[in-house]
Amino acid sequence: MTDKIVGILGGGQLGRMLGASASLLNVKVVILDVGETGPAKQVLAPLSPTLAHVDGSFADPEKIRELAAKVDVLTIEIEHVDVKTLEDIQSIPRQTPLAIHPSPATIHIIQDKLRQKEHLLSQDSPVSEFCPVDSTEESVRSAAVQLDLPLMLKSRTLAYDGRGNCVVQQVSQIADAISALGKRPLYAEKWVPFVKEIAVIVVRTIDGEVQSYPPVETVHKDNVCHLVFAPLRGHDPTLPQRACAIAEAAVKTFTGAGVFGVEMFLMEDGCIFINEIAPRPHNSGHYTIEACETSQYENHLRAILNLPLGSTALKVQSTAMLNLIGHSSSMDEITTTTNAALAVPGATVHLYGKSECRKGRKMGHITIVADSDAQLRDRLRPLLQSLPSSTPEEIDRYAPAATTPGSGFSDPQPLVGIIMGSDSDLPVMLPAARILDRFRIPYELTIVSAHRTPDRLVQYARAASTRGLRTIIAGAGGAAHLPGMVASMTSLPVIGVPVKGSTLDGVDSLHSIVQMPRGIPVATVAINNSTNAGLLAVRILAAGTPTLVTAMNEYLASLETEVLDKVKTLEDVGWEKYEVKRT
Amino acid sequence: MTDKIVGILGGGQLGRMLGASASLLNVKVVILDVGETGPAKQVLAPLSPTLAHVDGSFADPEKIRELAAKVDVLTIEIEHVDVKTLEDIQSIPRQTPLAIHPSPATIHIIQDKLRQKEHLLSQDSPVSEFCPVDSTEESVRSAAVQLDLPLMLKSRTLAYDGRGNCVVQQVSQIADAISALGKRPLYAEKWVPFVKEIAVIVVRTIDGEVQSYPPVETVHKDNVCHLVFAPLRGHDPTLPQRACAIAEAAVKTFTGAGVFGVEMFLMEDGCIFINEIAPRPHNSGHYTIEACETSQYENHLRAILNLPLGSTALKVQSTAMLNLIGHSSSMDEITTTTNAALAVPGATVHLYGKSECRKGRKMGHITIVADSDAQLRDRLRPLLQSLPSSTPEEIDRYAPAATTPGSGFSDPQPLVGIIMGSDSDLPVMLPAARILDRFRIPYELTIVSAHRTPDRLVQYARAASTRGLRTIIAGAGGAAHLPGMVASMTSLPVIGVPVKGSTLDGVDSLHSIVQMPRGIPVATVAINNSTNAGLLAVRILAAGTPTLVTAMNEYLASLETEVLDKVKTLEDVGWEKYEVKRT
Repeated sequence: MTDKIVGILGGGQLGRMLGASASLLNVKVVILDVGETGPAKQVLAPLSPTLAHVDGSFADPEKIRELAAKVDVLTIEIEHVDVKTLEDIQSIPRQTPLAIHPSPATIHIIQDKLRQKEHLLSQDSPVSEFCPVDSTEESVRSAAVQLDLPLMLKSRTLAYDGRGNCVVQQVSQIADAISALGKRPLYAEKWVPFVKEIAVIVVRTIDGEVQSYPPVETVHKDNVCHLVFAPLRGHDPTLPQRACAIAEAAVKTFTGAGVFGVEMFLMEDGCIFINEIAPRPHNSGHYTIEACETSQYENHLRAILNLPLGSTALKVQSTAMLNLIGHSSSMDEITTTTNAALAVPGATVHLYGKSECRKGRKMGHITIVADSDAQLRDRLRPLLQSLPSSTPEEIDRYAPAATTPGSGFSDPQPLVGIIMGSDSDLPVMLPAARILDRFRIPYELTIVSAHRTPDRLVQYARAASTRGLRTIIAGAGGAAHLPGMVASMTSLPVIGVPVKGSTLDGVDSLHSIVQMPRGIPVATVAINNSTNAGLLAVRILAAGTPTLVTAMNEYLASLETEVLDKVKTLEDVGWEKYEVKRT
Repeated sequence: MTDKIVGILGGGQLGRMLGASASLLNVKVVILDVGETGPAKQVLAPLSPTLAHVDGSFADPEKIRELAAKVDVLTIEIEHVDVKTLEDIQSIPRQTPLAIHPSPATIHIIQDKLRQKEHLLSQDSPVSEFCPVDSTEESVRSAAVQLDLPLMLKSRTLAYDGRGNCVVQQVSQIADAISALGKRPLYAEKWVPFVKEIAVIVVRTIDGEVQSYPPVETVHKDNVCHLVFAPLRGHDPTLPQRACAIAEAAVKTFTGAGVFGVEMFLMEDGCIFINEIAPRPHNSGHYTIEACETSQYENHLRAILNLPLGSTALKVQSTAMLNLIGHSSSMDEITTTTNAALAVPGATVHLYGKSECRKGRKMGHITIVADSDAQLRDRLRPLLQSLPSSTPEEIDRYAPAATTPGSGFSDPQPLVGIIMGSDSDLPVMLPAARILDRFRIPYELTIVSAHRTPDRLVQYARAASTRGLRTIIAGAGGAAHLPGMVASMTSLPVIGVPVKGSTLDGVDSLHSIVQMPRGIPVATVAINNSTNAGLLAVRILAAGTPTLVTAMNEYLASLETEVLDKVKTLEDVGWEKYEVKRT
């Protein structure tokens, strides 16, 4: 596939996962890292004495040179490397040219957060307001005038996982903030009251072509990535596409190939700001190993080796990643969670083989895949519960328990929406809910009136798909417009239940629902028969979920048994004495 | 998770994939294999001098002892190990007891194919007829009388990938067959004219609980596994369950924990025979790495370490595995195929890092995942085409090209079945086909009459799901029973198109289709509106396939544009001159 040898500056978990991907492709890799048994070196035994790994720091010019001499392509798993040395190395002529990805120029821009922000601003990428400061109180005070308080005082360099960030709420805190951040070069950022953090992994080819992975929601805790969810859900159907466009445009402004992690803030008004960019595989993309057609690690290798990129599509319906962060110097808490994960279907544990555990250290992660968001949260819940640091509020927020079937309340992660034009339709529509209860399919049930709440109708229908619904059951009577109007504003299958009114025996509703014009189908069931609407929803979901096929087969068998029992009763008691029970 | 150290006898590709799984769980592994840089040792750098890998053969008693002294659990990646040594080691008391999985007794039974067959027969597992022979012509001649000709003459030991098998067509070939198989102990098997080869990976816990992976179809070429497909498709809806039951029952008869690969023959009459069992991760289970919630490798480790088993469910809709078999001593042909794979979405290349290529050697494999069987075959086709050994017949058989949309012929891998009660319904039903053409969804179109071909109706409906269909569009007129009857015999969503007859304006058909009793839903569309049936089928498929959501959104936007264009024309030419075009 390729004979090129790849050198990685850094041998932590990202190097380990890059190394595992490289093994699949028989790509030879040499690691530069301190010691002989770090996370990456564990999974990549040296192939020959001449290709032995290098023992040293990714910041040591001599060691970088030693690595460069062995390889054809240099890449990084951390951006805090010595760019000057990389530039020097690149300028020295050699027999086979050395490629460095991303380019030293890109690393140079990104490793200084102020320079990164200035670059993004100059390239019209959306960033929140910021300004340079020096480490004097006066300078920060004038930044506070410009940006307002609270503001973020940040280290320009060597900052990651929230280290090097300090919130300044009041002018009186400035001195403490400066001393807390040490003698590092600083800058100030306007406080960003975001509603959600999102991230997009973008892979860039040597020719500058870019390709996005699905946008994800990231949840940080104590400034460190805690959880990642994909796909990105929400009421705004334009959000995923907008996030990708911004991330791709930003990555296009850099040079060199490889994966970039673009972290962004989503604001209340739907606005997106770029927070920061990492020029390498990123924590928010770990989920791609199990959940996407090609992992970010393999695509990083493909990009830097000038091979065709792999598909970035999700191959599962729903996925999450939970970081395993050290709680103390003992692995015990980590083991509690990984043991919990062994009992969770769809959970894959990744431990990084780090020699010792420390508070705040990334020791591993767990990826969960599922057929639906509801199943995902159900699978995630015991893992969050196993963490010593989880609060009940956090657990309920990120992995809400499913609603008890039959409780009369909507599930927090519905797959089916049951809507009706009026509360008077509720008795007719309840059997649909009962069926979904029976199949344990999460649903919501609410009132949406085409004629009395037209705006609500539009909002409901337009957001249904990006909220995670997969089918909608709509009941209406008379001039029954609800199912058809909803169908015209969503790409989901819409099931229509004609509700019988006081006149015309429901034929008015039936014809209003079924006789849709060409282009917009409504799956119509019998008059007042919301049981069949519920069953049709199950069959539709089963088309993408094999376990539901089994459940539906069992249901059909139960119908058969029911009738055969009646056959027997008819024979046992005779038809003269037979009592017809109406259900 | 566990502090136990695992020793693996053998360091080839199975050991390599086991090792990669072990790294994820921080499970320490020591390999026994000749040399320092075999496939498994490459991905598992020794963690410490005391845990260095062992250089030697898995058949060398001294080396097995050396390995055993370092570890808590011994397992195998090949069954041709020295069982006597394993038994000896197990009988020696040690401070911490040594576990051996599978048990030496299991390996002893399985490594001799005659003993394995006798064991399965004694346990009532279905095996085809066989008999012991010695290496004399007379003995084989009497086997030929007992079993009929042709028969298979097989080596009892050290036989795999078809090595050690010889077909005897005529008595005159017996002497040559015996000498071809060398001086090995032999037995004879009745010739099995199977229609398909299938396999089930079963994982067995230390307590003897078993759990199956989805049954797969395996395709052998030159006696070596060539292709694997999952899920197993076919006209017999009971087949997957029967195959699992037979495989699980067989694995239950052995002792010790771990993964077993059960290879079976499917006969014309639906009968299943067990061909042979491997007491370890198996080639037919490589696909589980990308396609299942837990890979066979991780489940093997979990089983032998007495950890809870992981879910064996598929996480994708369709998957295939292609073995990369050496064609010569050059890797060139392999590289041609892996390069082709880089351009195929959903394809993951696994190269085994073997130092040299040889004809017939397993150099790697490629797993493909896809949203549907049709997409899978489409992705597989260029890979088969890249193999120097593929014939056009093989390519068309295992990766048939999609039918050209609009050609008027059914696709070989349909997702939607369009059926109608009579050929007179064809003009009404064609627009459904046109819609599926437009969305490039593979479908079949045929006639199934409820009243005139009731048996065909039953067969069609019962087999629809296991054949891979995901939804059925049924059109019928008058006393229109077809959609409802089909719905009663499948768990798939059935879309009903009422066809207008010469009387009653189609209301007879509409009511016959829509007014289904509670329990069996039919998704009914407007009279004669098969366009909407096609669109509803697309929406249903989209519920499990994100890319179709995008396509449907684009379709809805095109409808809007169409009407807005008419608005403009109405304004441009005025309504007096406006011409209404009927589509």
